[in-house]
Amino acid sequence: MAGQYAAELVEGGFAVEVADAPLLHEGLNLADVAHLVVLGEQGLVPPEAAARLFAVLLDAQRTPVAQFGYDPGLGETYNCREHRFSGLIGDDAGWLHVARTRREAVRVALRIRLRTDLLELIEAGAGFAAAAADQAVAYAQTYLADQTYLQHAQPSTFGHYLLAFVHPVLRDLERLTAGLDWVNRSRGGAGSVNGGRLPYDRQRVADLLGFDGVIEHTRDAMWQTDGLVGALAAATDLVVTLSKLAEDLEIWASNEYGWLELADGHSRSSVMMPQKRNPYALSMVRGEAGILIGRLTGLLTVSRTPSARSDGLIFAYGEMPRALALAARATRLMAGVVAGIRVDRDAMVHALDAAFTQATDIAEFVIQECDVDYRTAYRVVGDAVREAAARGQSGRQLTGDALDAAAGRVAGRPLGLAGRDLSEVLDPVAIVATRTGTGGAAPDVVTAMAQRCRERADAVRADAARRRVGFERVRTALIDIAEKRAANLDPRPPAPEIRPDVKD
Amino acid sequence: MAGQYAAELVEGGFAVEVADAPLLHEGLNLADVAHLVVLGEQGLVPPEAAARLFAVLLDAQRTPVAQFGYDPGLGETYNCREHRFSGLIGDDAGWLHVARTRREAVRVALRIRLRTDLLELIEAGAGFAAAAADQAVAYAQTYLADQTYLQHAQPSTFGHYLLAFVHPVLRDLERLTAGLDWVNRSRGGAGSVNGGRLPYDRQRVADLLGFDGVIEHTRDAMWQTDGLVGALAAATDLVVTLSKLAEDLEIWASNEYGWLELADGHSRSSVMMPQKRNPYALSMVRGEAGILIGRLTGLLTVSRTPSARSDGLIFAYGEMPRALALAARATRLMAGVVAGIRVDRDAMVHALDAAFTQATDIAEFVIQECDVDYRTAYRVVGDAVREAAARGQSGRQLTGDALDAAAGRVAGRPLGLAGRDLSEVLDPVAIVATRTGTGGAAPDVVTAMAQRCRERADAVRADAARRRVGFERVRTALIDIAEKRAANLDPRPPAPEIRPDVKD
Amino acid sequence: MAGQYAAELVEGGFAVEVADAPLLHEGLNLADVAHLVVLGEQGLVPPEAAARLFAVLLDAQRTPVAQFGYDPGLGETYNCREHRFSGLIGDDAGWLHVARTRREAVRVALRIRLRTDLLELIEAGAGFAAAAADQAVAYAQTYLADQTYLQHAQPSTFGHYLLAFVHPVLRDLERLTAGLDWVNRSRGGAGSVNGGRLPYDRQRVADLLGFDGVIEHTRDAMWQTDGLVGALAAATDLVVTLSKLAEDLEIWASNEYGWLELADGHSRSSVMMPQKRNPYALSMVRGEAGILIGRLTGLLTVSRTPSARSDGLIFAYGEMPRALALAARATRLMAGVVAGIRVDRDAMVHALDAAFTQATDIAEFVIQECDVDYRTAYRVVGDAVREAAARGQSGRQLTGDALDAAAGRVAGRPLGLAGRDLSEVLDPVAIVATRTGTGGAAPDVVTAMAQRCRERADAVRADAARRRVGFERVRTALIDIAEKRAANLDPRPPAPEIRPDVKD
Amino acid sequence: MAGQYAAELVEGGFAVEVADAPLLHEGLNLADVAHLVVLGEQGLVPPEAAARLFAVLLDAQRTPVAQFGYDPGLGETYNCREHRFSGLIGDDAGWLHVARTRREAVRVALRIRLRTDLLELIEAGAGFAAAAADQAVAYAQTYLADQTYLQHAQPSTFGHYLLAFVHPVLRDLERLTAGLDWVNRSRGGAGSVNGGRLPYDRQRVADLLGFDGVIEHTRDAMWQTDGLVGALAAATDLVVTLSKLAEDLEIWASNEYGWLELADGHSRSSVMMPQKRNPYALSMVRGEAGILIGRLTGLLTVSRTPSARSDGLIFAYGEMPRALALAARATRLMAGVVAGIRVDRDAMVHALDAAFTQATDIAEFVIQECDVDYRTAYRVVGDAVREAAARGQSGRQLTGDALDAAAGRVAGRPLGLAGRDLSEVLDPVAIVATRTGTGGAAPDVVTAMAQRCRERADAVRADAARRRVGFERVRTALIDIAEKRAANLDPRPPAPEIRPDVKD
Repeated sequence: MAGQYAAELVEGGFAVEVADAPLLHEGLNLADVAHLVVLGEQGLVPPEAAARLFAVLLDAQRTPVAQFGYDPGLGETYNCREHRFSGLIGDDAGWLHVARTRREAVRVALRIRLRTDLLELIEAGAGFAAAAADQAVAYAQTYLADQTYLQHAQPSTFGHYLLAFVHPVLRDLERLTAGLDWVNRSRGGAGSVNGGRLPYDRQRVADLLGFDGVIEHTRDAMWQTDGLVGALAAATDLVVTLSKLAEDLEIWASNEYGWLELADGHSRSSVMMPQKRNPYALSMVRGEAGILIGRLTGLLTVSRTPSARSDGLIFAYGEMPRALALAARATRLMAGVVAGIRVDRDAMVHALDAAFTQATDIAEFVIQECDVDYRTAYRVVGDAVREAAARGQSGRQLTGDALDAAAGRVAGRPLGLAGRDLSEVLDPVAIVATRTGTGGAAPDVVTAMAQRCRERADAVRADAARRRVGFERVRTALIDIAEKRAANLDPRPPAPEIRPDVKD
Repeated sequence: MAGQYAAELVEGGFAVEVADAPLLHEGLNLADVAHLVVLGEQGLVPPEAAARLFAVLLDAQRTPVAQFGYDPGLGETYNCREHRFSGLIGDDAGWLHVARTRREAVRVALRIRLRTDLLELIEAGAGFAAAAADQAVAYAQTYLADQTYLQHAQPSTFGHYLLAFVHPVLRDLERLTAGLDWVNRSRGGAGSVNGGRLPYDRQRVADLLGFDGVIEHTRDAMWQTDGLVGALAAATDLVVTLSKLAEDLEIWASNEYGWLELADGHSRSSVMMPQKRNPYALSMVRGEAGILIGRLTGLLTVSRTPSARSDGLIFAYGEMPRALALAARATRLMAGVVAGIRVDRDAMVHALDAAFTQATDIAEFVIQECDVDYRTAYRVVGDAVREAAARGQSGRQLTGDALDAAAGRVAGRPLGLAGRDLSEVLDPVAIVATRTGTGGAAPDVVTAMAQRCRERADAVRADAARRRVGFERVRTALIDIAEKRAANLDPRPPAPEIRPDVKD
Repeated sequence: MAGQYAAELVEGGFAVEVADAPLLHEGLNLADVAHLVVLGEQGLVPPEAAARLFAVLLDAQRTPVAQFGYDPGLGETYNCREHRFSGLIGDDAGWLHVARTRREAVRVALRIRLRTDLLELIEAGAGFAAAAADQAVAYAQTYLADQTYLQHAQPSTFGHYLLAFVHPVLRDLERLTAGLDWVNRSRGGAGSVNGGRLPYDRQRVADLLGFDGVIEHTRDAMWQTDGLVGALAAATDLVVTLSKLAEDLEIWASNEYGWLELADGHSRSSVMMPQKRNPYALSMVRGEAGILIGRLTGLLTVSRTPSARSDGLIFAYGEMPRALALAARATRLMAGVVAGIRVDRDAMVHALDAAFTQATDIAEFVIQECDVDYRTAYRVVGDAVREAAARGQSGRQLTGDALDAAAGRVAGRPLGLAGRDLSEVLDPVAIVATRTGTGGAAPDVVTAMAQRCRERADAVRADAARRRVGFERVRTALIDIAEKRAANLDPRPPAPEIRPDVKD
Repeated sequence: MAGQYAAELVEGGFAVEVADAPLLHEGLNLADVAHLVVLGEQGLVPPEAAARLFAVLLDAQRTPVAQFGYDPGLGETYNCREHRFSGLIGDDAGWLHVARTRREAVRVALRIRLRTDLLELIEAGAGFAAAAADQAVAYAQTYLADQTYLQHAQPSTFGHYLLAFVHPVLRDLERLTAGLDWVNRSRGGAGSVNGGRLPYDRQRVADLLGFDGVIEHTRDAMWQTDGLVGALAAATDLVVTLSKLAEDLEIWASNEYGWLELADGHSRSSVMMPQKRNPYALSMVRGEAGILIGRLTGLLTVSRTPSARSDGLIFAYGEMPRALALAARATRLMAGVVAGIRVDRDAMVHALDAAFTQATDIAEFVIQECDVDYRTAYRVVGDAVREAAARGQSGRQLTGDALDAAAGRVAGRPLGLAGRDLSEVLDPVAIVATRTGTGGAAPDVVTAMAQRCRERADAVRADAARRRVGFERVRTALIDIAEKRAANLDPRPPAPEIRPDVKD
């Protein structure tokens, strides 16, 4: 065995695969048990051999990965298992190959792994959505100057702003759930490519492993990667959305903005510069979004080969679980950040009061009230704003007189606004109160929307919890079967010697 | 106006945007008309001004893009329209700004564009699925040696092989349909960010434009990009799937394989080397898959900014329609390639007969029939194959005697197969006939699966056709409204001079 | 001819290629002329046929691309040329094929195109470096609070800050120049793959076209793409660097910072909200950086095929020139932005004075002067800063007494600083003045560095100008030769009919 | 300390960073030692504290990473070191902060790491180039039908083919060497951003660490990433080049081609299907190329932030070394594959003899010998080839009579070739022998080129070896200094307690 493979193949091939063995170990154990159950039920394996195999599989299940013997010198992950099993029970280990390729075992394991990884990400996303929706309610009356191009645009609230991130996250959770539905289907029994000659019950192995159904076409079942791309694209987009929020918060936490700061637990501070609170969490999330974009690119690029090429999937074994885990970490981090954020309402309002975010509302008011055309209204308001700014005034300090004066300059006649109470279009709070249309910033609208979002987030979490329980129940049941079958183990000692392994 | 912007801004900014104006022109016309209808219905625009605006919008609709006056020196796409409209009817053109930002118009137009682009891609994908499913039926009994690592593995059929590409394509069509559902929702009336003060009917404008509903949260409505990523990821994955098929066909069309050739209309041949038929179509599809991976990367990268940054969407205006169109072209090309392919059944069978694809079936037969363990069966078959190969025989020429001889060498005793008729495990056709399990290669299984795929493809096409009719009906109805409203146009000639345009 | 190719091949193949014909037309004309000169010199083409070919090539050179007849229905770009040429002069057009494949002509043309595209980008980059270096001198004494994590860190100057972008740009210009050296080598005469049987002078055709030398290995010459990746990676990195600057400026131009604003020619303002100056240029540069990352990804992905696959290069024909042009536009735009920027020195200094950027300097002063360990110094300064911040003081208002008091609290004893003049570590200007080490922020250091950068930028520009003159001289000389040779044209009229074209 | 950070920050931030600590540990030890040496030399640290610090640094250097105490609960990598050091020697550990930020230490360490990673990749690349050049000599007379679009094109040799991969690899080695020059420069002493107030000798720390020089501008020194992109782009391109070779070999190792097979040590075979030799190595290299494309994309995407954002570099800590190591593994694997390849010369020649790769040569012969125009020659040869193919003949079996007959059909007159010996244009070996021009396939040309390539590869290796020795010498010298300085350690026991760490 030793020396069978060139050192550079071990290093550049098997070691790359075996580095992912810890991610697949649990799934491989379950896949092997379920396969063996089906073989036994259909009389394709002698009962004694089956009992011995169940025993070594239970042993595998109890053995920590680091002690298991995943060693690139022996080949890839599955070879290492064969080596161990045949070392323990000799030729009986070979029965695991009946009606199944090595490749199938690993890919079933990948799906078992990914369904948990996806659940974790979905739960993290639902956690973010719930936290942000709750904060949207809490800040539904915390006013700020919303911006485009980072320039003050119109008055809004921090609650309305925050809720804008919840909607895309909920949509990505739907995409991730579709990804989970794809992942949680069974390729078991698909054979090497064309199906198999033995009477293998594909539905049974799917049920044993808790899959939602069987992937019909056997060659498709072996090689499909489309759902990996779909799930990773959704995960990446989710973190890109969170990165947008993180970048905003980084800016708003700057000394010059001072609108908010992160909780102590999400910042890094300095003994010497105690006023400096580095929002480290936000940097990390932005970087994680960038890394995930590269991971998705890599996955797609690796998929672009002729068909039935194993590299298209071998690299997914490690890339997918690691990328999903990174996404889940970033998502939990942003959920924490949002839940812990400290907003300086005064600073936000102060900036809003110093701004001219009323201009659009004033213009629309003028058109409705003063019977002038839109263009003229624009020019009048613009002139009044320019004049006020030059005098160091803010938008709140505009008056009917000032507008009339501007109208005189621009249009040659006043608008009749002198002395009129314009507070409904000058007070940012009053302006926000008019945003009662669908999805607008008015506090009641935001609160109601946020509650609906919260309910959707809760429903996602409940669904994830239900699935998680189901997966755990399947796992327990499988191990239970294995224990019962292994108990029939006959007393013959296992063959001690290590045999050359068998490859497909 | 002229000289207002630095030359490098025109070149590096506006010209980049205006290059996409031809993609958005139609959608902008419709978006403007629908907006104006709502303004009119809610009394937000004077009837005479509305009539004049309808007239210029109809004129825009009839004017070829190249003559319209999209000129980066004037600003971006919407600025060019303002310039033209105010040049034609003066200040009345300004009413289009009521209750809507410039940005909103372009984004509504993008969705109008993308829903057609997506429809086209969906139809192309359904066309591929239908063509490949039909060919799967036609070739359900065309036998070949299926491969892993490009090494002969097990016997299958070209029909079973082809059908393996139909399933992932159908799944990507579901993702694209979800993308279409996302695209076909209305951001109209979302205002600049927080909603609007005027009584604008968001549902009405959605209905007028044929959108399936309103995007609720106004800030989300303005800035969301998640569905773009989802749709482009699915489009890219679809073409990556087709690229896998294209790469297989390129290899199988080589002189050494000679299993098939493309139709004349998909090849490039040479007067001097008439035997050389370059499968140019396949190269192009592979390249197009690669380009699309880059486009998706670019889209995601552009999205990763702070929130409410226009670059995240400005670049989507051109990237999305062009990428979807490229995907549709590649898909139609592969549909044509598959429909026109010429298979050399004899060459395929000849390769199959020369191979040893029976080994797995023989081993499984030996286990079932000869009461030996799996490992022994493996070793016996391996030995017999090795011996036969050394004698220049193929798998079909293996005999019970040869297996017994191998068993003698390997296990010290014969298996009792001498003289036995092994044709059921030696004849590749007989082997394929055993693949009757779910999704297997047996001809009847393939034919039934292919018919179900064909039905799914037809259903997708019917849905797309229905949507297309709906979009066309909406378009006609909108123009009809515009024509009626424009007919109220008073006889005053439009103001001739060009005015400085208004920006948000 | 018509109908030879399937519609979907025309649309999904040739049309994709022919869309790039305008980029290659000029290079194709030159490549054809030079090839014909060599054929003539080596007696490989009859003089009369050569004269007719020179005439049609000159005609091609004078014909606008749009009128030339690049029509995907005829095949790819080179096919269209063959069609036109044989339509004009019949079989004599075929001599262009001697000792050259169609593919070679297009790839020579690509290099002719790219060397100009690269020159343009290099000049744009040098322009940015020069503009920014000049501004670094101008702002060498404009003080600001430099930041990490967007939190005030230490005092610096806007000049020192700006110059930090010049160095990486100069490095990328070196990489782009290496890319230009790679591009400007000749594949001419490499044959189809193995070289050629005819006595073709590879050096001569290289000289005629102004290439710096011959690419030795003929198969490498045909298919190499490594330099494309190198050049596009450098171009992308260059724009990513500029995007960093753009994002900083976007933040600093916000209302809350107010440190600077873009020139009017690089902003978009509003009639109604005249105080809002959208820094549109900065958004575009950030987006362009993102798009370029996707273009590089696409190029690399397309390159990853088996060897000698034309898609690896076909897609580069359009992607490379367009990506380099986009990079040049972004670079010129940022050069303009930097040159035109308006800095509010008071606002910058005001923020600096309100901050605590002195902390590190004070701590280092304390260690040197007061004989305390570093940790103690840190804690003392931190305590004093915290105390001052709580009292609403800034760093400038710290005193020796305050430090002594803090030392009492933290370390149980004063430091002996009471009454001491600490202005050397309290005044940000004084602090910056101490940064006289290599590359530091002291004004003289910055000015000297900036001048050296300016000299490097000038040298790059001079080199680029020299090359540009050389390319132009080569072009003129080639056309001159063609005109002389065409003058030998015999009076026989060209054969009028269109013949089927010849393919390799 | 414990509980200072939120769990989600530890998991989503520090744990992400600390996972890279094993990559940086060695470099951090050296960076700390060198910094301490400079502090000592310039009197910036008390000698006793320095001695204690040297002692703990030596201890760190001897401590396996796994035992060192890198624990995300304590913060990022550098925090963990601070924690350990201050746990061992109390406040004296704080002196390491003098004139250096935490960030600087890690980035110096990254460069120390990367220069070795780059050396390793450069050596691997030189190894590939040497192996492939040697094989090019060995196979300079092994004839094959070279291909475009995987269709037979012209005769060549396996040696000429192989050498085509050596040239781009050598060019990428130049780019990697430029990357190494960039990496091996010193940011030491650059301070936090603007330089430093203390008299720190930047050249001295550069010399101590074996850097080739100092990075001048201090802010550039802190934040530059351009060289990372340059180096990773070159590494990726290198593996993409190898992937092209791998994909070719995969096809040529198929049963239908049968031109070659990999050495046993690079294949995976099966006990049961001994004729099946899966070229696993080639799949892995193709996949690794795809993964690297994604890694480059991720790096560039992460770099695209505002300036001075730590995420742009934090993620490079792990991504760069891992990506370079993957590239080195893939490169060594392909070097092994090429060195061990088994070519079936007969199969290659058999395919060549069965083909029509002579067509171009015949046509050029006809033009030169028979006084016909190029188009006519093409058509005659095409007709003759078509006729021969229809009769089941190969190109070698063409005769002068057959060409004359074709000329009669095509051009109405014979060419006078009947009875003529055409072996010089019919025999592929004779054809290859004519390829004596620059870079052609003639055996002598290939051999001479290969020898020059081999010399270049050897020179690269020699340069790498020289650098490696230099780096090792620097390392030894630094540890030697540390040991001497630590020996002055006074007998006071280190303060036992763990103190709160200090952050910047």
